[in-house]
Amino acid sequence: MTAAELIRKKREGEALSPDEIHFLISGYVQGTIPEYQMSAFLMAAFFRGMNAEETVAFTHEMLHSGEVVDLSSIPGMKVDKHSTGGVGDKISLPLAPVVAACGVPVPMISGRGLGHTGGTLDKLESIPGFNTALSISEYKKVIAETGVVMIGQTKEIAPADKKMYALRDVTATVECVPLIAGSIMSKKLAEGIDALVLDIKTGRGAFMQEYDRAAGLAQTLVGIGTKFGKETIGFITDMSEPLGYAIGNWNEVMESVDCLRGKEVPDIMELTCTLGGAMVMLGKKASSLQEGIERCKEAVKSGAAYEKFLQMVKRQGGDIGFIEHPERYPVSKFSRTVTAQESGFVTAIDSLALGLTSVQLGAGRMKVDDTIDPKAGILLAKKTGDAVEQGEPLATFFTDKKGIFDSAAERIAAAFTIGNVPPKRTPLILSQVDKNGVKKWEG
Amino acid sequence: MTAAELIRKKREGEALSPDEIHFLISGYVQGTIPEYQMSAFLMAAFFRGMNAEETVAFTHEMLHSGEVVDLSSIPGMKVDKHSTGGVGDKISLPLAPVVAACGVPVPMISGRGLGHTGGTLDKLESIPGFNTALSISEYKKVIAETGVVMIGQTKEIAPADKKMYALRDVTATVECVPLIAGSIMSKKLAEGIDALVLDIKTGRGAFMQEYDRAAGLAQTLVGIGTKFGKETIGFITDMSEPLGYAIGNWNEVMESVDCLRGKEVPDIMELTCTLGGAMVMLGKKASSLQEGIERCKEAVKSGAAYEKFLQMVKRQGGDIGFIEHPERYPVSKFSRTVTAQESGFVTAIDSLALGLTSVQLGAGRMKVDDTIDPKAGILLAKKTGDAVEQGEPLATFFTDKKGIFDSAAERIAAAFTIGNVPPKRTPLILSQVDKNGVKKWEG
Repeated sequence: MTAAELIRKKREGEALSPDEIHFLISGYVQGTIPEYQMSAFLMAAFFRGMNAEETVAFTHEMLHSGEVVDLSSIPGMKVDKHSTGGVGDKISLPLAPVVAACGVPVPMISGRGLGHTGGTLDKLESIPGFNTALSISEYKKVIAETGVVMIGQTKEIAPADKKMYALRDVTATVECVPLIAGSIMSKKLAEGIDALVLDIKTGRGAFMQEYDRAAGLAQTLVGIGTKFGKETIGFITDMSEPLGYAIGNWNEVMESVDCLRGKEVPDIMELTCTLGGAMVMLGKKASSLQEGIERCKEAVKSGAAYEKFLQMVKRQGGDIGFIEHPERYPVSKFSRTVTAQESGFVTAIDSLALGLTSVQLGAGRMKVDDTIDPKAGILLAKKTGDAVEQGEPLATFFTDKKGIFDSAAERIAAAFTIGNVPPKRTPLILSQVDKNGVKKWEG
Repeated sequence: MTAAELIRKKREGEALSPDEIHFLISGYVQGTIPEYQMSAFLMAAFFRGMNAEETVAFTHEMLHSGEVVDLSSIPGMKVDKHSTGGVGDKISLPLAPVVAACGVPVPMISGRGLGHTGGTLDKLESIPGFNTALSISEYKKVIAETGVVMIGQTKEIAPADKKMYALRDVTATVECVPLIAGSIMSKKLAEGIDALVLDIKTGRGAFMQEYDRAAGLAQTLVGIGTKFGKETIGFITDMSEPLGYAIGNWNEVMESVDCLRGKEVPDIMELTCTLGGAMVMLGKKASSLQEGIERCKEAVKSGAAYEKFLQMVKRQGGDIGFIEHPERYPVSKFSRTVTAQESGFVTAIDSLALGLTSVQLGAGRMKVDDTIDPKAGILLAKKTGDAVEQGEPLATFFTDKKGIFDSAAERIAAAFTIGNVPPKRTPLILSQVDKNGVKKWEG
């Protein structure tokens, strides 16, 4: 068996055996198979795909390239959520404490933002003092103590994925469902979870804009989870407009805090309680999804979820003074409010454009080594369906960069489409996916 | 412009501009674009192809990565031939002196054998003393003095191709028409030629077994030659059975010598005089292909071609004593004659199987650093269409390796198909290709 033979096999559209996948990935991790053979293989896989067996074998190799955390000493079913990412997608922040407050431990290893989508780690780190760089043993200690922990990927977790993702990024081989699925699932399976809930985004601001591609990814992810013995439920959700009103790291923390304190931001609460309901059900603290959803709502209402959030922030070194007194937080040098040029109804908000503008303001990264301004971002004043009068605010943006001021205002104004009739209401949650397939979400 | 963007562009099926091709190839040669990006690009090009403009730009970059030899000080049109390679394809050996004897200078830079096909350099080097490693200045001197020179690729000629071919070889990206075409033509255009004749093989023993793929390659090659201002004529020829009776380096030299001395081996002479006729015509020493063919036949008949061959061998350091007294040449330790198991007619001879067996006997390489036994090989006793009696010899093979003796005999016997009725005679030369397209060869 040689790497060139296996590249040729994939190139010709044949499936590789688990042994062959092992040969390739372990050889790549050990350095006996060079980058240039792996990148040719990845491009062949981009064109030819991988079947379910290959994808599971691929995930297995990535997973076992590092440590698989053992949380079996912690009582109960440990359940995490993964989102494929979107604009304003701060759902992990309210979700993890809500689910933990329902008695289901949530061990969460998250990533940083790149491109137009934000990352949970960057949001957490906008809280002064919050430490996401825990060791595996600290991670285990925190989850045992508080029932929730949120950290970044450590060097022990799926090192093959880290090496391979860096290669995919520079060889135009990122957008390939089995590779994406293997990358996501190897990291999640390494966390020590017993079950998993997935939020697969579709629409303008999502990584996979077309519904069918998102559904294909969802089924692949659920298939892998199931194959590894972890019950996995996915939701395909709409990312046409930003989630909630806040975009930007500290903005999103504060919006999450507001929700945990009882503020009714409809899309955030719907998504948090639906994903959370599924997690509570998988964690055996509810006998149905509907019961799980109710338990989540109660955890918010009772204040237990907010208490859990504060406990987690404190336990990971964060200064809750800024959470309780946000007026102490530093303020951006510049801000401007963008107003409507005409009266009517907001019929669409281009989340991709707002995500990219937010990066331009300093809230995100186009390259992995860009630095982030936690204060920068956008606060929407209107959402899709809202009536608006000419001259009324559409959004306010915050930045320390002066030069980009006018262009950002223009881009934000252009992201709002205003029409004469109210748009048809479209659902936020489109479908539910489990091992039996995809079914339309009935709410 | 980044390499990743260009890889993505090709991956999505878009054509790259000449500037973009220049950025990629020059960056790769200079080392600013790493192997792993180039291999991903090559695999994307395998799936998406390259159009005529891209292929010309690619060839241009490969060609100008090194020295383009200037032979303008030598009078007359310099014409070379390239064959895509086959089993028993020793045609360059009689062809170059035949054409040179007709007054057309032949500057030829050849390659070594790899896999089931032999290489002209290995054949020449089986002549004791023959030096194929001339410098560019010696190369120019020899062609000026003798009208013919046959050397190996020097480090000055298309170094980008050498680097890229090594990468393609280990990343399963060899079999891609525009890449093959760019590789062939960049080396040929660097030789200092004014015109070129191509022999594109098809059938069982060829690199491109299917006629349509061979025709596609032929048209691409002719298109590139034409674009670079060099009149180019291609012939698509059959490689179902080996050419002539001899396979193996010294065997093939001696068969070539026999032909130059007037022995009538039909397929070798037909191909030599047809390719040669086209070269003589392109070299302006005949006003039609038919006249060129007649001039080649005369050059053999008069002994001028054989004299030219001896002159070339001597000039490049070869010992013509072995040519004139082949009984002095070393003999293989072992030989065996394979006989027919039944009577009938030879209906097919599997050239691929014989090529691979010949490598096993020591006559070729499976890896570039394998060493070659110049004596090893196979001499056929029968060709397709011949009648054969049970027990009559089909072929004799020669080797210094004892262990493979029985398996080689079996493989050779199995390569002959014997039937009850004589097979339909199929033409050796199938089509002629020029800038106006492909037309059936009428002989």
